[in-house]
Amino acid sequence: MASSTPPLKDELDIVIPTIRNLEFLEMWRSFFQPYHLIIVQDGDPSRTIKVPDGFDYDLYNRNDINKMLGPRSSCISFKDSACRCFGYMVSKKKYIYTIDDDCFVAKDPSGKDINALEQHIKNLLSPSTPYFFNTLYDPFQEGNDFVRGYPFSLREGVPTAVSHGLWLNIPDYDAPTQLVKPLERNTRYVNTVMTIPKGTLFPMCGMNLAFDRDLIGPAMYFGLMGDGQPIGRYDDMWAGWCTKVICDHLGLGIKTGLPYIWHSKASNPFVNLKKEYNGIYWQEEIIPFFQSATLSKDSTTVQKCYVELSKQVKEKLGKIDPYFTKLADAMVTWIEAWDELNPATDSANLPNASAK
Amino acid sequence: MASSTPPLKDELDIVIPTIRNLEFLEMWRSFFQPYHLIIVQDGDPSRTIKVPDGFDYDLYNRNDINKMLGPRSSCISFKDSACRCFGYMVSKKKYIYTIDDDCFVAKDPSGKDINALEQHIKNLLSPSTPYFFNTLYDPFQEGNDFVRGYPFSLREGVPTAVSHGLWLNIPDYDAPTQLVKPLERNTRYVNTVMTIPKGTLFPMCGMNLAFDRDLIGPAMYFGLMGDGQPIGRYDDMWAGWCTKVICDHLGLGIKTGLPYIWHSKASNPFVNLKKEYNGIYWQEEIIPFFQSATLSKDSTTVQKCYVELSKQVKEKLGKIDPYFTKLADAMVTWIEAWDELNPATDSANLPNASAK
Repeated sequence: MASSTPPLKDELDIVIPTIRNLEFLEMWRSFFQPYHLIIVQDGDPSRTIKVPDGFDYDLYNRNDINKMLGPRSSCISFKDSACRCFGYMVSKKKYIYTIDDDCFVAKDPSGKDINALEQHIKNLLSPSTPYFFNTLYDPFQEGNDFVRGYPFSLREGVPTAVSHGLWLNIPDYDAPTQLVKPLERNTRYVNTVMTIPKGTLFPMCGMNLAFDRDLIGPAMYFGLMGDGQPIGRYDDMWAGWCTKVICDHLGLGIKTGLPYIWHSKASNPFVNLKKEYNGIYWQEEIIPFFQSATLSKDSTTVQKCYVELSKQVKEKLGKIDPYFTKLADAMVTWIEAWDELNPATDSANLPNASAK
Repeated sequence: MASSTPPLKDELDIVIPTIRNLEFLEMWRSFFQPYHLIIVQDGDPSRTIKVPDGFDYDLYNRNDINKMLGPRSSCISFKDSACRCFGYMVSKKKYIYTIDDDCFVAKDPSGKDINALEQHIKNLLSPSTPYFFNTLYDPFQEGNDFVRGYPFSLREGVPTAVSHGLWLNIPDYDAPTQLVKPLERNTRYVNTVMTIPKGTLFPMCGMNLAFDRDLIGPAMYFGLMGDGQPIGRYDDMWAGWCTKVICDHLGLGIKTGLPYIWHSKASNPFVNLKKEYNGIYWQEEIIPFFQSATLSKDSTTVQKCYVELSKQVKEKLGKIDPYFTKLADAMVTWIEAWDELNPATDSANLPNASAK
């Protein structure tokens, strides 16, 4: 890729769930300005979001979501950053990068600004290695390779569907940990990327996340959170569990590690506790459910996998709380809405798949 | 632990498979001198190894091995560094650190000498987290914790059985990669430790390795390599595959990452190719075998697990080559010899378990 043209300039959208912080886009200007932004406003549609000059963007508020999806808009969360997944659905690009508005440009140990997007793109464009652990981490990083004892038949790797980036400064802790360790800051710059092995779940954070929409987009549903729901702050977790199970089934990879962003502000731990307490309790059953979930051979597309998973959610998690029955239905609605807006997604790489 | 007393001073042995390099012990003197060394000479017993003054050590050569094990000495490799596992067997300490004589003290990015042993001990004394991936890596590292979405029921972790350290400078590559990339050096200092998830195999390198002998010792058999065998340089790999399967079965953890040592010299790739070519071919079947290996409920000790695994090796890998039938028998011999020298190991933590 030529250094003068930003990588994947016409193939990537940046999705931002509302922008409360005016500094945010100014700080990212040199990195984000070449790309198209999709801003999904999560609260009162009458409020105005000021986007600085020079950015190419579309802004969607609740009225737009209702208009575009009709009754299916019920699957998109209200007054919660989970609404960002609407941006994934309306994008027509192959790649998505999503970032929170309290995430700023971090510096690497040499003091240089980190171009998070560029690293995510490197992660997505190189294969993953989910079937065997490489002790020097991602063998496709510069100066790295597979170590002695790594089977040669597995060195081709698999396509990478997700790149999960990390956070310096404020770590992504749950409310109890925030309360117990209010002063803890992440200062450890871990200079690597790695594939999360097949069969292993991880807590996917939506703060600094990129993915290949053609490969995994329909699994990136951020669930029902916020207004009117008994749970919050599990939007990205839900997407992560579903995505990992489906990636494992379809032979796709998920990488985590670099790039870092600078997470500027801890959210209020008391508010978070109220949002999280059900999730903290429920996850003790949800995670074993996802750990043992298997999909059938017939589920050959992300959509089919996702609908099959929704049935298992209804059957097995519906017993925990009626919320999961509602969520299972919303998962199906999400796929219907996705397919309506993206009629060709089932056949990725068709000429019209990445046309706007 | 007081900084004046080296950690685990009376509970750890350092096992070194021969010492060809006189600089080696001088370089490590400040770190190793407080500990007892076990040197296992891998070749001609008439050759003398000069150990500098001030070190507390036992040296075993082939004559000693033959004398102590009698006919069972057949399970210990000859003219190959795989013989180091004899040192694990004769040690009476709870912890083992093993290191090659071409591994020197590395420096961290700030230029400070890395005390590899101290980091291994930190790794071994803190729990592992094999059941769910923590995106900030080892949550027991200083300044780290479990991230949002990590189930609370899994935060206690499991005992750590193995600490696998890495190498700066010469990476641990197989002969084909050495030949293709003769100039590649590992300069990437990845400042972290992580648990290898349950169900995931990894290529365990014996260059810079520590383990809890009480928890996993009998699985650390380095196989039949070198003189008279059709394979070399798979000693640590074999131990790693067996160890990982048994750790997963018994609920024990394996960490990899820090500490780094400085690997000074690449071994001859042409010689390595001759040693490795069978292994490179066979591992394509061996790894799927270990990936699908399961142990029965009755295998409640490392010894029982290992003997059960040896039967599966004979049955399933014996078809590849008669070597594996011989290896399976040697695995049983190894356990018999281990139990003879360590009558109390099955009941770890008995008062006499760590007595010399």
